Amino acid sequence: MDIDLFVTPAGVEERGLRDKTVVMVDVLRCSTSICAALTHQCREVIPVATVEEAMRLSSNLFQETTMLCGERQGTRIEGFELGNSPLEYTAARVAGKTVVLTTTNGTVALTRSRSARQLLVGAFVNMDRLLDHLAGQGGDVVIVCAGKEQRFSLEDTACGGMIIDRLRDRIKPRPTLSDSARSARVLFRHFAKDLGRLLRTSAHGRVLETLAFQNDLDVCAQLNAYPVIPEYQQGRITALG
Amino acid sequence: MDIDLFVTPAGVEERGLRDKTVVMVDVLRCSTSICAALTHQCREVIPVATVEEAMRLSSNLFQETTMLCGERQGTRIEGFELGNSPLEYTAARVAGKTVVLTTTNGTVALTRSRSARQLLVGAFVNMDRLLDHLAGQGGDVVIVCAGKEQRFSLEDTACGGMIIDRLRDRIKPRPTLSDSARSARVLFRHFAKDLGRLLRTSAHGRVLETLAFQNDLDVCAQLNAYPVIPEYQQGRITALG
Repeated sequence: MDIDLFVTPAGVEERGLRDKTVVMVDVLRCSTSICAALTHQCREVIPVATVEEAMRLSSNLFQETTMLCGERQGTRIEGFELGNSPLEYTAARVAGKTVVLTTTNGTVALTRSRSARQLLVGAFVNMDRLLDHLAGQGGDVVIVCAGKEQRFSLEDTACGGMIIDRLRDRIKPRPTLSDSARSARVLFRHFAKDLGRLLRTSAHGRVLETLAFQNDLDVCAQLNAYPVIPEYQQGRITALG
Repeated sequence: MDIDLFVTPAGVEERGLRDKTVVMVDVLRCSTSICAALTHQCREVIPVATVEEAMRLSSNLFQETTMLCGERQGTRIEGFELGNSPLEYTAARVAGKTVVLTTTNGTVALTRSRSARQLLVGAFVNMDRLLDHLAGQGGDVVIVCAGKEQRFSLEDTACGGMIIDRLRDRIKPRPTLSDSARSARVLFRHFAKDLGRLLRTSAHGRVLETLAFQNDLDVCAQLNAYPVIPEYQQGRITALG
């Protein structure tokens, strides 16, 4: 098994992903919110890049079972039902619903990775379920970190590093790691004892704290809080298995 | 002082560099070879992107004092006087000469960074001279890692991390680090005890070993072997001060 990691979607080449399992990681908060939604029986999440696309798409779907969700600069888009806080995605709100979600970085990363053999969504909240699946499928793994506005983000790279660290313990013979995969593992191990601190001290985490989303940081750091494997296929994300 | 780091030139925006001191890092081997050349009294290094540009440019310069140098896939370009091994850049070869150098990654990184207030070249071999200068100038610092073919490279990010780690010890109040700068520092500290191992186990280092450039790796890991500060100005690199 080869494991590679992209610190942002910038260098991802579609051709290189065709025979790989790709995990898109956007810890704060797109990946975590998708896991929350699907754990709470949301029917599907449709990620879109722009507010306009979200509105156009939702107008073509059954109004009663469709929710418009998403954020810009961290806060809920005006007129949308939910923002991008995982705590909003309760069973009472999302069970049975189609969530049309527009977020800044996660959607770009998913779109860039769609040529993958299988495209999954990863975060701290679904770590063990994800690891079971990745170890079981046995093929090469590529982690695509969403980053923040095309820049490196600490929390995504460290979360990718955790996936790599734990896979390395489980797979024999040991997976081959690229330079970036090795480095992400080193980064994760540095912060492994306190994922909460990792998120609070990251650039994006500090912004979310000033926007009064402290509780979101606690949820996003909670290992296995939402044990589900979101899978992206033809524009829709559903729970695998 | 703010310190930022780009793991590849991909996300670098010219506007963002105008009031910064930028350090371009390409440990294996562009930065190291430039330091070797300038330490050995080479008059100037002119980095160019393509073989054609190198040949065109050198035909317009005094033949006796101009050397065509560079590599593709790690080995010397046919018909060129020197490759990209720092050990080739001896005083006997380069003193008083203009070196026209084409390398795969370093030249791209320099060109992308040319809007900087000051653009310097960094490596392990000129670490302390560089740190003295960066600490003395006091302004914000951006490290641009050359990477390898638009991908993350372990040795460049870790070398950037060393610059960050040592500057952080010297500057009061402590510099503010971006997510990527913090992460590069963690990476450097993980490998700090054995820079030779860092280079030998990196993806690029392993390729150079198969090409029989083991000695280059030893030189590139040697702290302060070439104590010079290469400065890029209007297409030419000369020794600062």
